Amino acid sequence: MKISQGVEWGLHCATLLALAPPDRVVRRDRLAAHYGLPEAYLAKHLQAMARAGVLHAVPGPRGGYRLGREAARITVLDVVEAVEGSTPPFLCQEIRQRGTGALPPDQCRRPCAIHATMTAADQAWRASLRTVTIADLVARLPAGVRERNEKIVS
Amino acid sequence: MKISQGVEWGLHCATLLALAPPDRVVRRDRLAAHYGLPEAYLAKHLQAMARAGVLHAVPGPRGGYRLGREAARITVLDVVEAVEGSTPPFLCQEIRQRGTGALPPDQCRRPCAIHATMTAADQAWRASLRTVTIADLVARLPAGVRERNEKIVS
Repeated sequence: MKISQGVEWGLHCATLLALAPPDRVVRRDRLAAHYGLPEAYLAKHLQAMARAGVLHAVPGPRGGYRLGREAARITVLDVVEAVEGSTPPFLCQEIRQRGTGALPPDQCRRPCAIHATMTAADQAWRASLRTVTIADLVARLPAGVRERNEKIVS
Repeated sequence: MKISQGVEWGLHCATLLALAPPDRVVRRDRLAAHYGLPEAYLAKHLQAMARAGVLHAVPGPRGGYRLGREAARITVLDVVEAVEGSTPPFLCQEIRQRGTGALPPDQCRRPCAIHATMTAADQAWRASLRTVTIADLVARLPAGVRERNEKIVS
């Protein structure tokens, strides 16, 4: 089980964009250079975030990205789901209905306890990620970093 | 992000083994046939569970598997970590220390808020999986399934 690198990239980019003045658009090559990321690969994740409404993409030679809404209304989960999708990581294959021990379909109308346990854990994970917003991440930047990055995106 | 099929297989096998009388060893080909699983691939996961102490492997022609300890002392998390490993799914690459915006190492002694948020969510996920044991899964088997499976592994 592994979370895509794009999640770290997307969260850092969103935190940086949150420091820009309203309506200020930051170019994609600048975001990539700031964090030393491969631009073409970062582009894929930024586009996914724009499709999810987390970012707003401005096309054209002076284009780039800004946040899609205020930072306090974007949760870490919003970014994670924009980049990773929202499919639960546990894909039940209903093996209880296979093989010599196969149960008949009428005994399998509800998810089994294993499936339910994995779903509950996934919900706990998402609930935890939903408690933190991009504004919270900005508030937790170390002293000095916020001011420095604000200048960079101003 | 995806959880290996082995987690579903391992949890179902552990639940089935929990129904066997104490010291009863169930053959690997029987476990594979019961759930219609490819035996060679299941073997890999059963071995990992044995290495983690979740199962006890008995070698030889009459060999097979039984639980490594009582079902009430094996959590779903034990099985998940035996099969998936316990490496957190979020691997921080410290991109804050890269590129044109690189922070000096002395400003990065502690994990950043992004890393801390992902770690907290991972802990919430593991805590949720730790609340359910194999004995709980057995207790939640539908009426009739427990008795039938008990006969199969008796």
